[in-house]
Amino acid sequence: MRIVYSASEMQAIANKYREWGKRIGFVPTMGYLHEGHLSLVRQAKQDNDVVFVSIFVNPLQFAPNEDLDKYPRDIERDESLLNKEGVDFVFYPSVEDMYPDGFQTYVEVDKLTKVLEGKSRPTHFRGVTTVVAKLFNIAKPHRAYFGKKDAQQLIVIKRMVKDLNMDIEIIGMPIVRESDGLALSSRNKYLNQKEREQAVCLYKALMKAKELIETGQRDADVIKEEMKKVIEGYPLAKIDYIDINSLSTLEQLKQVKEGDTLVSLAVFLGSTRLIDNMWF
Amino acid sequence: MRIVYSASEMQAIANKYREWGKRIGFVPTMGYLHEGHLSLVRQAKQDNDVVFVSIFVNPLQFAPNEDLDKYPRDIERDESLLNKEGVDFVFYPSVEDMYPDGFQTYVEVDKLTKVLEGKSRPTHFRGVTTVVAKLFNIAKPHRAYFGKKDAQQLIVIKRMVKDLNMDIEIIGMPIVRESDGLALSSRNKYLNQKEREQAVCLYKALMKAKELIETGQRDADVIKEEMKKVIEGYPLAKIDYIDINSLSTLEQLKQVKEGDTLVSLAVFLGSTRLIDNMWF
Repeated sequence: MRIVYSASEMQAIANKYREWGKRIGFVPTMGYLHEGHLSLVRQAKQDNDVVFVSIFVNPLQFAPNEDLDKYPRDIERDESLLNKEGVDFVFYPSVEDMYPDGFQTYVEVDKLTKVLEGKSRPTHFRGVTTVVAKLFNIAKPHRAYFGKKDAQQLIVIKRMVKDLNMDIEIIGMPIVRESDGLALSSRNKYLNQKEREQAVCLYKALMKAKELIETGQRDADVIKEEMKKVIEGYPLAKIDYIDINSLSTLEQLKQVKEGDTLVSLAVFLGSTRLIDNMWF
Repeated sequence: MRIVYSASEMQAIANKYREWGKRIGFVPTMGYLHEGHLSLVRQAKQDNDVVFVSIFVNPLQFAPNEDLDKYPRDIERDESLLNKEGVDFVFYPSVEDMYPDGFQTYVEVDKLTKVLEGKSRPTHFRGVTTVVAKLFNIAKPHRAYFGKKDAQQLIVIKRMVKDLNMDIEIIGMPIVRESDGLALSSRNKYLNQKEREQAVCLYKALMKAKELIETGQRDADVIKEEMKKVIEGYPLAKIDYIDINSLSTLEQLKQVKEGDTLVSLAVFLGSTRLIDNMWF
């Protein structure tokens, strides 16, 4: 496994593999890797001739009041994990290399980014799509892998790829969970023991939604109300949003639509904001 | 020469040439071709193994009050001209193929687009950078050619390419002029005989600037004032702007800076808006 620090060097390597007719699989991450990331890496290994993983905590997708500075980092542990998985190249650029003086170009997806996470974090997705567009141009993958935990991110990136005619297959991978149901996230590290215990509330609320839908409930307001009640059983939890949307347009649904429904929520545990979702 | 109507087909052709190790030269146009365009095509022929030309009147770069509907089109003449130049592929997509239902992704360059043309045409460059990003992803060129007549466009596209790590060499080609100095433009077609005669005022004003700079004048206000006087000698001409800017940042200059000065202007002849510029 080789660590590449410069964008131009990474791009030159990608060009070589393309010249050789090799299929490139790419997993963009912000590091502090967990089993969720590793499940993407394993799928990328299986599908492609060569696997690139990027580790870059992207300042552009954090608002000034968010957790950029305290976002957890452990590059040595990340490298060791990726090495074990047989990753070929880790791209680990500096902020200065990604955003040099004079940088001023942004990629923006419009409507899909105005709801859910985009409503709570108005500049977030512009940062995501801009960095992902850059990373795609650097790593030149045939396939790129994203977790479904960031459901809206996955939907927004698929839209960008389609709208800008990027010749890349975007693959969404299932959420990986702890034994109690908590979705894996680098941000889980922020939780103290009590918060960690109560963080299961997101999963419990989603399970309640699943149970209601499976027993025939279709009314989105009823389902959201029942989810809210679940969360309210956990005193350390504060709801940011609970929503039910179309998977294709992210428009709010009044009725659950088979095969096109995203149930998602964001909840604060103390000062830590967690998200989770299910697709129906 | 082959005409390709679909983006996915054009992209498949580009992929084939890349697999074969061929260098792709690309000239994006809005059609109604003149010698200016053909000079780009000839350079592209000289530099590359295969040449793609796109013809697409891009609605996204026209404001509602602008000349999208009357923009001149003559695809048969264009095809015949490109065929004579030995172009390999003409990409001639429909608006529906470029902007299908649900399209909502934009590429925006920030500061460079807020001045000059961008000030007069606030949504113009967003349309340009979005369509050029799409065309680059479709045609996958090694080199792309743009005329210096649209100086700001060239500078904005270079910035986009750098900021988004697009692996494409952008080549700016000299302005081609009529014998009296009028810069070639598809929009010259709009001019009636009297307007056409007076349209030379843009070139005359630039010649005045050149003369002043060559005889040691460095004060931008003085130069602009003298250019204004030249234009005012033509009763059908109405100045939109006359400006002197840094070529690298497009910031307004008080003093002409050797090697980094763009003198540019936009002038209405009747209802037709013409632009021209010189680099010093």
